[in-house]
Amino acid sequence: MLSESIIDICSQIADSGVQTCPANLEAGCGGADSDEWEGEFFPGIPKIKYEGPSSKNPIAYKYYNANEEILGKKMKDWMRFSVAFWHTFRGTGGDPFGAPTKMWPWEDGTNSLAMAKRRMRANFEFIDKLGVDRWCFHDRDIAPDGKTLAESNSNLDEVVALAKELQGSHVKPLWGTAQLFMHPRYMHGAATSSEVGVYAYAAAQVKKAMEVTHYLGGENFVFWGGREGYQSLLNTNMERELDHMAAFLKAAVEYKKKIGFNGTLLIEPKPQEPTKHQYDWDVATTGSFLRKYGLSDEFKINIECNHATLSGHSCHHELETARINGLLGNIDANTGDPQIGWDTDQFLTDISEATLVMLSVVRNGGLAPGGFNFDAKLRRESTDVEDLFIAHILGMDTLARGLRNVAKLLEDGSLDELVRKRYQSFDSETGAAIEAGKADFDMLEKKAMEWGEPSVPSAKQELAEMIFQSSL
Amino acid sequence: MLSESIIDICSQIADSGVQTCPANLEAGCGGADSDEWEGEFFPGIPKIKYEGPSSKNPIAYKYYNANEEILGKKMKDWMRFSVAFWHTFRGTGGDPFGAPTKMWPWEDGTNSLAMAKRRMRANFEFIDKLGVDRWCFHDRDIAPDGKTLAESNSNLDEVVALAKELQGSHVKPLWGTAQLFMHPRYMHGAATSSEVGVYAYAAAQVKKAMEVTHYLGGENFVFWGGREGYQSLLNTNMERELDHMAAFLKAAVEYKKKIGFNGTLLIEPKPQEPTKHQYDWDVATTGSFLRKYGLSDEFKINIECNHATLSGHSCHHELETARINGLLGNIDANTGDPQIGWDTDQFLTDISEATLVMLSVVRNGGLAPGGFNFDAKLRRESTDVEDLFIAHILGMDTLARGLRNVAKLLEDGSLDELVRKRYQSFDSETGAAIEAGKADFDMLEKKAMEWGEPSVPSAKQELAEMIFQSSL
Amino acid sequence: MLSESIIDICSQIADSGVQTCPANLEAGCGGADSDEWEGEFFPGIPKIKYEGPSSKNPIAYKYYNANEEILGKKMKDWMRFSVAFWHTFRGTGGDPFGAPTKMWPWEDGTNSLAMAKRRMRANFEFIDKLGVDRWCFHDRDIAPDGKTLAESNSNLDEVVALAKELQGSHVKPLWGTAQLFMHPRYMHGAATSSEVGVYAYAAAQVKKAMEVTHYLGGENFVFWGGREGYQSLLNTNMERELDHMAAFLKAAVEYKKKIGFNGTLLIEPKPQEPTKHQYDWDVATTGSFLRKYGLSDEFKINIECNHATLSGHSCHHELETARINGLLGNIDANTGDPQIGWDTDQFLTDISEATLVMLSVVRNGGLAPGGFNFDAKLRRESTDVEDLFIAHILGMDTLARGLRNVAKLLEDGSLDELVRKRYQSFDSETGAAIEAGKADFDMLEKKAMEWGEPSVPSAKQELAEMIFQSSL
Amino acid sequence: MLSESIIDICSQIADSGVQTCPANLEAGCGGADSDEWEGEFFPGIPKIKYEGPSSKNPIAYKYYNANEEILGKKMKDWMRFSVAFWHTFRGTGGDPFGAPTKMWPWEDGTNSLAMAKRRMRANFEFIDKLGVDRWCFHDRDIAPDGKTLAESNSNLDEVVALAKELQGSHVKPLWGTAQLFMHPRYMHGAATSSEVGVYAYAAAQVKKAMEVTHYLGGENFVFWGGREGYQSLLNTNMERELDHMAAFLKAAVEYKKKIGFNGTLLIEPKPQEPTKHQYDWDVATTGSFLRKYGLSDEFKINIECNHATLSGHSCHHELETARINGLLGNIDANTGDPQIGWDTDQFLTDISEATLVMLSVVRNGGLAPGGFNFDAKLRRESTDVEDLFIAHILGMDTLARGLRNVAKLLEDGSLDELVRKRYQSFDSETGAAIEAGKADFDMLEKKAMEWGEPSVPSAKQELAEMIFQSSL
Repeated sequence: MLSESIIDICSQIADSGVQTCPANLEAGCGGADSDEWEGEFFPGIPKIKYEGPSSKNPIAYKYYNANEEILGKKMKDWMRFSVAFWHTFRGTGGDPFGAPTKMWPWEDGTNSLAMAKRRMRANFEFIDKLGVDRWCFHDRDIAPDGKTLAESNSNLDEVVALAKELQGSHVKPLWGTAQLFMHPRYMHGAATSSEVGVYAYAAAQVKKAMEVTHYLGGENFVFWGGREGYQSLLNTNMERELDHMAAFLKAAVEYKKKIGFNGTLLIEPKPQEPTKHQYDWDVATTGSFLRKYGLSDEFKINIECNHATLSGHSCHHELETARINGLLGNIDANTGDPQIGWDTDQFLTDISEATLVMLSVVRNGGLAPGGFNFDAKLRRESTDVEDLFIAHILGMDTLARGLRNVAKLLEDGSLDELVRKRYQSFDSETGAAIEAGKADFDMLEKKAMEWGEPSVPSAKQELAEMIFQSSL
Repeated sequence: MLSESIIDICSQIADSGVQTCPANLEAGCGGADSDEWEGEFFPGIPKIKYEGPSSKNPIAYKYYNANEEILGKKMKDWMRFSVAFWHTFRGTGGDPFGAPTKMWPWEDGTNSLAMAKRRMRANFEFIDKLGVDRWCFHDRDIAPDGKTLAESNSNLDEVVALAKELQGSHVKPLWGTAQLFMHPRYMHGAATSSEVGVYAYAAAQVKKAMEVTHYLGGENFVFWGGREGYQSLLNTNMERELDHMAAFLKAAVEYKKKIGFNGTLLIEPKPQEPTKHQYDWDVATTGSFLRKYGLSDEFKINIECNHATLSGHSCHHELETARINGLLGNIDANTGDPQIGWDTDQFLTDISEATLVMLSVVRNGGLAPGGFNFDAKLRRESTDVEDLFIAHILGMDTLARGLRNVAKLLEDGSLDELVRKRYQSFDSETGAAIEAGKADFDMLEKKAMEWGEPSVPSAKQELAEMIFQSSL
Repeated sequence: MLSESIIDICSQIADSGVQTCPANLEAGCGGADSDEWEGEFFPGIPKIKYEGPSSKNPIAYKYYNANEEILGKKMKDWMRFSVAFWHTFRGTGGDPFGAPTKMWPWEDGTNSLAMAKRRMRANFEFIDKLGVDRWCFHDRDIAPDGKTLAESNSNLDEVVALAKELQGSHVKPLWGTAQLFMHPRYMHGAATSSEVGVYAYAAAQVKKAMEVTHYLGGENFVFWGGREGYQSLLNTNMERELDHMAAFLKAAVEYKKKIGFNGTLLIEPKPQEPTKHQYDWDVATTGSFLRKYGLSDEFKINIECNHATLSGHSCHHELETARINGLLGNIDANTGDPQIGWDTDQFLTDISEATLVMLSVVRNGGLAPGGFNFDAKLRRESTDVEDLFIAHILGMDTLARGLRNVAKLLEDGSLDELVRKRYQSFDSETGAAIEAGKADFDMLEKKAMEWGEPSVPSAKQELAEMIFQSSL
Repeated sequence: MLSESIIDICSQIADSGVQTCPANLEAGCGGADSDEWEGEFFPGIPKIKYEGPSSKNPIAYKYYNANEEILGKKMKDWMRFSVAFWHTFRGTGGDPFGAPTKMWPWEDGTNSLAMAKRRMRANFEFIDKLGVDRWCFHDRDIAPDGKTLAESNSNLDEVVALAKELQGSHVKPLWGTAQLFMHPRYMHGAATSSEVGVYAYAAAQVKKAMEVTHYLGGENFVFWGGREGYQSLLNTNMERELDHMAAFLKAAVEYKKKIGFNGTLLIEPKPQEPTKHQYDWDVATTGSFLRKYGLSDEFKINIECNHATLSGHSCHHELETARINGLLGNIDANTGDPQIGWDTDQFLTDISEATLVMLSVVRNGGLAPGGFNFDAKLRRESTDVEDLFIAHILGMDTLARGLRNVAKLLEDGSLDELVRKRYQSFDSETGAAIEAGKADFDMLEKKAMEWGEPSVPSAKQELAEMIFQSSL
C-alpha cells in the first residue's frame, strides 16, 4: 500500500488544526508582519560549549573543541562544518507514507516571502549557537517559487539580501546549488530532460543560483543530478541525454569564469533514488563522464556517505577513490543504515566510520575550500526543537572524535609502516622499471623464470584491524 | 540532498499556477457545486474489450477475456481483479524528492468533501470501463479527515453512502482498511504506538472502517502495519509493542464477530519502509506472531509481490509459504525493480513472474473470498489519463497470460511428474514411517547401515526450467 | 568466470610442491607416526595475558580480563568463549575462485586419522594458550569420513577418545554438531533430502554426533541446515520437505531424552547460501516453524551475526527477537561486511555492534548453558600462524569492550529511563486494561472520543544515540 | 558455520569410493593410457537439431535455427556462441559448503596431462554435438600447473597442440585468458599484487596465454581481474596498485602488437567476489580507469550479466553503457538470481532479459569479433551428463527467442518511434545549438524567460512496456 495525495496530506494537517505556532512563544506568528520576528528562536538553548568527554550535558560538545590544534591545524579548520538549510529548516518529517510531523514554533504553515525571511533568521541564530561558520542552500529552499522565473529570481534576491546581512563578517556559504528536482517540470531531468524548454529553464536557474552563491561569498557550487538519469531504458536515449548533460556543465564552467566566480564546481554522485539510475552513480562513474567530455579539470566531487553505501561502496572507498584521482572536494556528512536500501540521510554517529572518513581528509591535507556539510536530517519522529541541536552536536562530536583517533593512529605510525612494508618489494630495481613503464613482458618473463615461485607473505589484515581498533 | 517541506511543495504547485482543470473539458470544476459533476471523466476511453493477442490497440485486452473458461473456471473468477482507490485516484506522482506531477482534470486542488465525491464518481466510471467488479480503499483516502474523530466519521459516512449507491448491484469492495500511517499521530505506530491515546484512536478508526467495509459488502478487511515497527531498538520496547499489537488484533476479531462481519481479516506483511523494521516482516514472521498469540485461525495473509522481494524472497516463495500454511488470502498484484531497494509498486508486467504467481493461485484453488488488488501506481512521469488505463490493462493481461501459461503447464503435466518422481523414495514403507512420526533414530541408523551409501540422482533443475519456459 | 575443479586445486597444490611442513620445525611431519607429535605447535606464542588498554602488544588482551568482575559476574562467565575447530583447524583459505592458502606447519597434506589426532593436539594447545574453556566441532571436521558409516563412526570414536583425554578437567565442548552439508550425498538436503536413504543416513549421523557430544560433556547440540532448503521451487515440494524436517527434529528430541543428554538443542538460522532459500531463514521463520510443529519448548536458537545481516536484520534485532521469545541460546560471534552479500564469517571487531550484542546478553541474564563460539575465520590472505591468535584476541577484546560499555550504560541508567518514560502512558488504567486483553473497540472508541487528538512526543532517537555513543 | 579443508573434501571423495567411471561405459578409464580414449563421450546424445517451438524434445532446439536469417544475418552470425571450457569441463559442483558432486564418466579423479587431453576430446565432441563453432578457456583449466613455470608452459603446449588438431578447420577460440586468481600466489592480486615477483609471474603467464590464444586462432583475449582489488583499505595502497595494473595492461598491449595478435583485448568487470572490491567494478569504473591511463582505444569490455546485476545495474544498462562508449566487445551470457548476492553464473533463461540483451546486440550491429560465451554452470545438484546439454540448449534457445522478439519489435517500429518523438524538441534550432556546444547560459536564460513555463508531457513508460511485452 502506498502514498496518498500530497495535496491531501496538506489538507489533513490544515484540517486537523495542528498548531504550528505554540501559545507559549510570545512572538506573534502567522501575521503579515511575521518576518519582523527578531526574537529568539531557540530560547532555551545557549551557545554550545566544549565541556569534554566526561560531560553528560546533551547540549555541549564532548569532543569538538573548535580552536584546539590537532595534527597541526585547528579542529575548525579541518572540519569547516556547515549547516544544511534544507534539512534543518525545510525538513518536515514527511515520508512517502506519512504527512509532516515537525511543526516548528516559527513556522506559520505557509511558504510566503515573509516566512522565508523569518526562517533565515532562525537559520543564523542556529548557526551562531552551534558555533559554526558555514551554511549550504538550494535556491528554492530559501525562497519561494514565483509564478514566473522572473518572480522566482526576485524572491530569491530579496531573501539573499537578508542572508547577506545576517551572515555578517564571518559566516558564508560553504556552497550553494540550484534545486532541479522538486518541481514537476524537472520530472524527466533538468540538463537531461527530453524537453529543450526544461533544459533552458534549468540553465537559467543555475545561472541565477551561481550568481547569488557568488554574491554571498560561497566557496563552492554543487550539482546534484537527482533527476539526471532514467526510470526505464525502454523510453530513454541515454547517449543523447549524456551529451546534453556535458553541454550543460560546459556552459556552467564558462559562466562561472565569465562572472569571476572562483569557487569550486562540485558534482555529487548518487546511484539512484529518485530515478532507477542516476548518471552520476558513484565517484568512478562521475570520473569516467568528466574524462570522456574533457571536464575533469573543472570539477571536483562532493561525496555523501549515504550515497556511497547505496552504490555498494564504503564511504571510505569513495573518499579514497576521489582522493587518488584528485577529485575530493567536499563531504556531505551523513550515513545510511546498513539494512536499508534508500537514502536515510542520518547524522553520522559511528566512531569507526568517522575515523576512516577523517583519515581520508587528513591524507588529502584537508578539504578546503570544501568542508563538511551536514546533509542529514532528524528522524521523522524527532519533533523537539532541541533534537536539532542534539543531532548536530552528536554529528560534530563524532567527526571530532574521528579526527582525534586519526591523530593517535598517525602518531603511533604502525599502520602506515605495515602498509609501507607490504609493498616494499616494489622499491627495487624491477619495481622501479615497472612503475616507470619500462618493464615489458619479455623482461618480466625472464625475471619470473629466474626467480621461481614467488614468496607471498600474509596480508596482516587482522593486525591492521587491531591497530585501527586500538585507536578508537 | 533531500526533500523539502511538503508544505512548500504544495505552495509551489499553487504558486506556479499549474492548471489542474484543463480548459478543454467542458464540465466546470473547482466550484462549490463540483461534486455534482456527473459528466464523463474519461471521455476518450471506451469500455475495454478483449481483442486477442494480435491486437495492437493499447486500449484493449489481448489476453484477459473475462468470461472465457480456463482450468474449469471463468478468468474473472480466477482473477477477481480490484482497483486500488489510493493509487489510482489519490496517487500524485510525488516522491521524497519531488512535488506532485499528476493534475487529473477532475481534481480541483482540494480535498474537500465535494472533491471526494467527485473522485468517487470517477472511480466507478473507471471500474466500469475496465470491466472489473471490485475496488479497495483506506478510510482516509476516500473521505477527508475532519477536525475531530466524529467529524472524520461523518465525512466517511457521507462518501460511503455515495459509494454504496454507485456500486450498484454487482460491484463491491474486495477489501477495506484503515489508514493508520499517514497522520502524524501515528508516527510511532498505531497499535504499537508508545502512546495509549494513539492506540485508542487507532482502535476507533479500525472499528469505523470495519463497519463501513461491512456496510459496502466488502469481502475482506486488511491490516497493513506501516508504522507498526521501529526505527531504532535503542528507544524501543519491542516486547511490549508486540503484546499491544496482539491485543489490538484480538479486539478486532471480537468486534468483527460482534457486528456479524464475515469477511476475512488479512495481514499484509512488509519488511520495512517506512520504518527500519516492520513487525509483519514477511509471511513467516507474520505466521510466527499469529501462532505465538493464538491468532492463526483468525487471520490470513495479503501478499504483495514488491514487499516479498524487499524481504529477500521471491513473490512465489511468499505465496507458497502462505499456501502451505493455509494462510493465502489475497494478492496485492504489483512488482518491484530488482535493482531498487524500496517499494516501487509497479504494475506486474513480467510474464514469467505472473505465471509463477498464477501457479500458486491455481494450486490454492483460487483466492476467493480474496482476489487480485492492483496495489500499483503509474510512474511519476506518466501523466496522461490514458496511462491509467494502459497500466491496468497491461497488469491484467500479464496475469491473464500467466493463467493461460499455467493451464498449458498443467495440461502438459511433465513438471508435476518430475516433482512427484523426485520424492518417490518416500512413497515407501520407511518413508511412510517417517511421515507418520514413527521412525526413531535407532530404526533409521539400522536402515542406514543396511542400505549403505545412498544413491542421489540429479535434481533436474535445468529440465524443470526448460519445461517451465516452454509454457511461456 | 568461475571456479575450477576442486580436484584440480588439490592437484595444483600438490604439483606445485608447496611445503606444508617447514624445515625450521624440528618435529617430524607427514610420517606414519605423525600423530605422536607432542611438541609445541605454536612455539613463539606464550599464554595470552591481560595487559590493559594501553598495551601495544598484539599478543595480549587489552580489554578481556577473564576473572575481573563486571555487572556481578566474572568476564569469563558472561562470555563463555569457545574456539571453532573447523575454522581454526580446518579452514584452508580456499574460496570459490581460489585454492587453499594456509599451509600450517603441522599439516601433512592428508586427512588421515593420524593427522586428525595431531590437529586435535594443536587445538588444545591453542585453547590453552588463549585461556578459554570451550570448543565446538562438527563430527566430520575432527575425524575423517570412512568408506562406510561404521568406519566413519569408528574414526570418530578414535579421535573423540583423544579429545576427551586432552580436554582434561576444565575444558569441554560448548557444542557439537553433525556436518550434513559437505558430502555430495547431502546435496538435496539431509532431513529435507528428496531421498529417504539420505534422511536415514543423516539420522544415523546425528545420533552418533549427539552421543559423542554427550560423552565429551558438551553443553549444547546444534542443527545448522545448510542444505535444508531449495535451489528452485520448480522442482521442490516445500510442504513435504518441511514435514520431514519436523519429523527429523522430533526424533532428535526423543533420542536426546533416551540417552540422558541434558544439553540444549539449538537451531542456527541462515537465510541462504549455499541454497537459494534455507528453511531456517531467520529467528522469526525458525520460531514459526517450531511453533507450527509443536517444537518450541525443545529448541533454542544459535544466532550468528553474519547470518542475521544477510537476512536483512541487524544482529541486535535477531538477538532481541530471540530473547523476547525465550529462544536465545547461543551466539556464533562473527560479523559480515555491510557491502558484501555472502557469508564472510569475519571476527567481530566493531565496538558499537559488540556493545549492542552484549546488551542483549546482559538483558538475557547471560547465555549459559550457551556461550560465544568464534564461528569466524582468518582472511584468505592471512597466512601466519600468529594471525590465528591476533584474530581471536581482537574478537575477544572487542566483545569484552562491549561488556564494559554495557556496564557504563546500565550504571548511567539514562537510556533505560528514556525508554521507560516513552511507554509510561500505558502504565495507566486504560493501558492496564489493554495489556490485560480487556479493552474492546467500543470502550476504546469512547476513550478516543473523550480524549480528542492525542499528544505525541518526540521519540528522542538522537538523544538515545548520543547516550549510547557516550558509552563507547 | 563454514567450509572445511579442501584437502579434506578431496580425501572424503576419494575415501568414500565414489565411482567416477560408471560401469556401463565400455571405454576404460583411469588407466595410464586413458588419454587415448577416443570413444564417444556422450553416447546417448545425437547432434542437436532445430525442431521448432512445438517440440517437446529436451534435446532439440526450439528457437535457435543456426542458418535462419533474422534481421539480415544468420542466427549463428548474430550469436557466435561459445562453450566455456572451465564450467562445462572443470566445474565440479563444489561450493564453499560442499564437496564436488559431478563425477563425469570420463574423469579419472586426477588432473594429469593424460586426463587433460581426454577432457579436451570431450570438449570437442560436446561442441560438435551442440553445433557451435567457438570455445573459451583459461590456460590453467585446460592444462595442469607444473612444478615450474617452464613445466606449466610445456604442459600447456602439449594440450594446445591437441586442441589445435581437434579444432579442425571451423572451430576456434572466441577467446583465451590467463587464470590469475586460483593459485595461492595470486592471493593479493596478479598485476596488483603487493609482491613484485607475482607481478612478473603474472606477466609471464599472460604472455604465454596470449601466444597460445594467437596460435589457436583466438579472436579475443580477456582480462578478468578476480584478485585485482582489495579486501581492506586498511592494508592497501590503492593508488599504487592501480598504477601497477595500468603498467601491466600497457605491457600487454605492446606484447600483443609485437607478436602480431590482432584479437581484441577485453576487460571483464565484476564488482566484488572474491575480493571486497574489484578495480574493474563495472563498465563505468573500467571506462574511467582506461581513460585515466590512456588505454581506452586498446581495450573493449566483456560484459557478464550476473556481474552487472551484482554491481547494482541491469545487464541491459551495462550493455548500453558499453555500447554508447564504443566499448561493447563480448558478452558472457549468464544470469544471477535477483535474491542472491553472489555470483551464481546460471544459464540465462529469462525471455524478457534475453530480448533486452539482444536489443543491445542488434543496435551494436552484432558483437563480432566478440560473441556470446556461455560463462554459466549447471547447478550443483544437476549431475546427469544430459543436464549439460539441456542447460546449453535452453540458454541458446532463450537468446534465440530474444533475437526473434527484437526482430518483431523493430519491425513493428512503434517503440523506436515513441523514443524518437520523446526527444523531438531537441530537433530544433535551440536544440541544435545546445548539441553543438553553442548555447551559453545567457542565451538559454533569454529563451527560458521568453518561453515561460515549459510543457512536460508524459514519459509513456507504461505504453513502452506494453509494446515491449507484446513482442515477447
